[in-house]
Amino acid sequence: MDKIGYYYQLTLKMFLEQGMSFAPNQIIKYRDQLQFTYTEHYNRVKKLSNALKSLGVRPGEAVGMLDWDTHRYLEAHWAIPLYGSLFHTVNVRMSPEQIKFCINHAEDVVLFVNEEFIPLLESIQDELTTVKTFVLMTDTPGHVPSTTLPNTIEYEQLLSQQSTAYEFPEISEDTRATLCYTSGTTGNPKGVVFTQRDLVMHAISVLISFSCYPQGMNVQANQVYMPLTPMFHVQAWTVPYFAFMLGNKFILPGKYEPSLILKWLSEEKVNHSHCVTTILHMLLFHPDVEKYDLSHWRVDLGGAKLTRQLAERAWELGVFTLSSYGMTETCPAMTICNIKPEHYDLPVEDQIAYRIKSGIPYTWGQIKVVDEDYNEMPKDGKSVGNVIFRSPWCTHEYFHDPEKTKELWRNDWLNTGDVGYMDLEGYLVITDRNKDAIKSGGEWISTLTLEDAISQFPPILECAVIGIPHPRWDERPCVFIALKPGQNASAEDVRNHLLKFADAGKIEKWWIPDLPDGYVFIDAIPHNYIGKIEKVTLRKMYAEGKK
Amino acid sequence: MDKIGYYYQLTLKMFLEQGMSFAPNQIIKYRDQLQFTYTEHYNRVKKLSNALKSLGVRPGEAVGMLDWDTHRYLEAHWAIPLYGSLFHTVNVRMSPEQIKFCINHAEDVVLFVNEEFIPLLESIQDELTTVKTFVLMTDTPGHVPSTTLPNTIEYEQLLSQQSTAYEFPEISEDTRATLCYTSGTTGNPKGVVFTQRDLVMHAISVLISFSCYPQGMNVQANQVYMPLTPMFHVQAWTVPYFAFMLGNKFILPGKYEPSLILKWLSEEKVNHSHCVTTILHMLLFHPDVEKYDLSHWRVDLGGAKLTRQLAERAWELGVFTLSSYGMTETCPAMTICNIKPEHYDLPVEDQIAYRIKSGIPYTWGQIKVVDEDYNEMPKDGKSVGNVIFRSPWCTHEYFHDPEKTKELWRNDWLNTGDVGYMDLEGYLVITDRNKDAIKSGGEWISTLTLEDAISQFPPILECAVIGIPHPRWDERPCVFIALKPGQNASAEDVRNHLLKFADAGKIEKWWIPDLPDGYVFIDAIPHNYIGKIEKVTLRKMYAEGKK
Repeated sequence: MDKIGYYYQLTLKMFLEQGMSFAPNQIIKYRDQLQFTYTEHYNRVKKLSNALKSLGVRPGEAVGMLDWDTHRYLEAHWAIPLYGSLFHTVNVRMSPEQIKFCINHAEDVVLFVNEEFIPLLESIQDELTTVKTFVLMTDTPGHVPSTTLPNTIEYEQLLSQQSTAYEFPEISEDTRATLCYTSGTTGNPKGVVFTQRDLVMHAISVLISFSCYPQGMNVQANQVYMPLTPMFHVQAWTVPYFAFMLGNKFILPGKYEPSLILKWLSEEKVNHSHCVTTILHMLLFHPDVEKYDLSHWRVDLGGAKLTRQLAERAWELGVFTLSSYGMTETCPAMTICNIKPEHYDLPVEDQIAYRIKSGIPYTWGQIKVVDEDYNEMPKDGKSVGNVIFRSPWCTHEYFHDPEKTKELWRNDWLNTGDVGYMDLEGYLVITDRNKDAIKSGGEWISTLTLEDAISQFPPILECAVIGIPHPRWDERPCVFIALKPGQNASAEDVRNHLLKFADAGKIEKWWIPDLPDGYVFIDAIPHNYIGKIEKVTLRKMYAEGKK
Repeated sequence: MDKIGYYYQLTLKMFLEQGMSFAPNQIIKYRDQLQFTYTEHYNRVKKLSNALKSLGVRPGEAVGMLDWDTHRYLEAHWAIPLYGSLFHTVNVRMSPEQIKFCINHAEDVVLFVNEEFIPLLESIQDELTTVKTFVLMTDTPGHVPSTTLPNTIEYEQLLSQQSTAYEFPEISEDTRATLCYTSGTTGNPKGVVFTQRDLVMHAISVLISFSCYPQGMNVQANQVYMPLTPMFHVQAWTVPYFAFMLGNKFILPGKYEPSLILKWLSEEKVNHSHCVTTILHMLLFHPDVEKYDLSHWRVDLGGAKLTRQLAERAWELGVFTLSSYGMTETCPAMTICNIKPEHYDLPVEDQIAYRIKSGIPYTWGQIKVVDEDYNEMPKDGKSVGNVIFRSPWCTHEYFHDPEKTKELWRNDWLNTGDVGYMDLEGYLVITDRNKDAIKSGGEWISTLTLEDAISQFPPILECAVIGIPHPRWDERPCVFIALKPGQNASAEDVRNHLLKFADAGKIEKWWIPDLPDGYVFIDAIPHNYIGKIEKVTLRKMYAEGKK
């Protein structure tokens, strides 16, 4: 049959236009420094789109950004994908070496750079192979940062040259929209691609899960929203898209400073945020927290497990919390701890037990726990297996890496790499996250990169890094070391060796294991029958040693 | 790029599975007669799917249904489209002649028939060209209706032969899912097709518009839902799909009986319904209405304009109302009267003015008012033009009629045929619905069919039918008649002529214009320069005559 008429594509434009038409006078605030109406914001997005054209960016090419949660990030969030280019949200917490890898791998043609990250880029500028223009961004009006970077222009100057007259092109919903690199389990980060449609369907699912369930996040039109997971981190869970659609007031916190965040949460009567447990911990145990009224605030937690202690602290302060589970490849939503109707009448202290689980699937997510042959495990609250997932928003592409993509989609399910079980009430419980990787303060530490650095210390025969529990950072790395016969080395020696790698930008300084718990010397690293290091055994050894 | 992994299709299965996983013990009630848990319902849906297979239905073939709002309708709502066949929701309010046309045009291979409609089908059975099996449905347990229809089987008997083991096939989101005929503006009804994806996107949009806007419908998980526009009428606005997804309790009213509906609304504490103004009027002005507590009830009105009088009556009784505007081709959502943030603090009596407009677009709908050359009209509260529409859910197909489809999509916009203007606050105001057609008691009267019948009365030279306002039915037909020179005829004569057409099943009896207002004799019917009857002039003449 011939196609007749207009076929509406699922693109981010849906959210932008709907918000503009519903609440053209709503406010977007950047810290205490700037504010824009939705209409002004919309016009700046159109100018930015024209700017991309003036810089010669072609549809499909990647454009990178290094910035905190600013009004500029939100502008780029719309303009870069809606222009038809690929928005590379550079993770500024990676090491310079990794950032260099990502920019070259993405083939970014333009980089938008907050002046704070200019020195970082200068340190790798000779090795960047594709960047034609650097757009410098500063919070100081009228100031143009000085730099040795070539071909630079300041962001506001660039925008000021542009017209607001711009028609977003009609693009296919299957157009690549965003690219964010994850250093989950391998040496080189992998570029996770989401299409326009992926982002749209993810945003819809999260919105429904946040809006339609009693005693949940209660997100509504005309509320106040503050992101508290960085916008470079899986597109801030796509919440900015639907928050704008609903005419929410935006309070953009820039670089996170707990005392200022507390002040704004209270002054602006913020209704909802997404956050990682590390940041929430800093806020709720801040010495001044009792001075602020946080009773309007509802928070969805991700990144690492929400502990009962933290959930109870939140409740004491009038803050509603629930937890979510996900990963970069799932955009990130997989499960959310919305409670089921049979628990609506439970007292809060009993509800908390449900709110800190891994959760039930986000709207339309499909979770299965399976054995190695993909047979579903009994939902009996104890049968542990591999967690696999399907949804209308999963990534279908590690950028330029079909092999890894095929591995991810083994047996036509997204293989999370995590293990867990389904409890008797239909909640997922994750028992081991991504097996080998470590999440510390909400950010990944690549064990392979760390092991690579450590093993370059001459006395070392072999090493293996595992995550160990930490009260503040959830997890910290711990390295098991087998020395070469007749060699000697202390924990301090290994640490000093690693400091040199950090100074050289090869690893992050905060990746270095802490003294003394982070260093364990053993005779030999255990391997399984196919030669893979048995990290499960190491974790058991660590736990035994702690008893 | 090769496609890797599983591509999640937007199909109705998303809503079914999500509801099952969230609320397997929730209840679906049919009147005071029957109730099923979601799990039992789900199993019946699977049995019905197997039944389709056992009846030899092939994917893509049409299966029709003639029934009121029953548990069976809801079962078919899922099973027929998810099996991959085309669900023809027969409008039982059409004339037998039209119903015959629709069934043959749809090429229904199976018809599900409530015993009330068996005599109707018997009257046309010899002219049905494609139906192989009639599945008879009755509310009386154990009873098998007797009929002259060939190849019949009773619904419960059919289900009882089936297994609950059934895997819904993986179908493309572009598969045709539903087919409903509209007798809007032409002689023969047109079959409006919606794909799986159309229905999914429509349901999502309506859900967001019903759930996320303060002082709106406030639809949430675990509420109580009663449909009050028939399920054969544009799939009950797709509300059953998302109501199930949210684990809502269903109260299915069967054939509408105002006194029973009032009783159930009160007893079951129903939270939300979609309804036409005619039915709402019957309920709210029912002699016993004050006996019932309707204060939980929120109603979205469609079909015809919600009057201030009716909205105020609702408010007196504690019922929340707002109005929507749409048409069959838009599934039907176009606009909804959610109020904007600047009106949240208005007193209710002032908010009512906004709630009875045509509204602002449903989430992601795009409305434009344009001149004949598709230039947008000023949004000045007075510039009237043609209303055109785009959305992620518009029909792309009049069944087997590409020419009419192309007309509908002239200039790549869905041409509603309605005229109106945008007011200064961004609300659409419809001034003329579908120009020539008449909507009476929520149902279309085809003016062309009526004119065709009237003009067969020998003394008549030419006639034209317009809609005139009516306090109860919103609109009634009025025929302007020009007699042949030297001929005579009275209104009574014309009415008697039409009664014969009704008896013959060529038109509905309730289409016949009322005495005396429905008959106006004039010298000549006015035409425009291309020969089209100027109905606008006739409407003015009628209004002048009433002064």
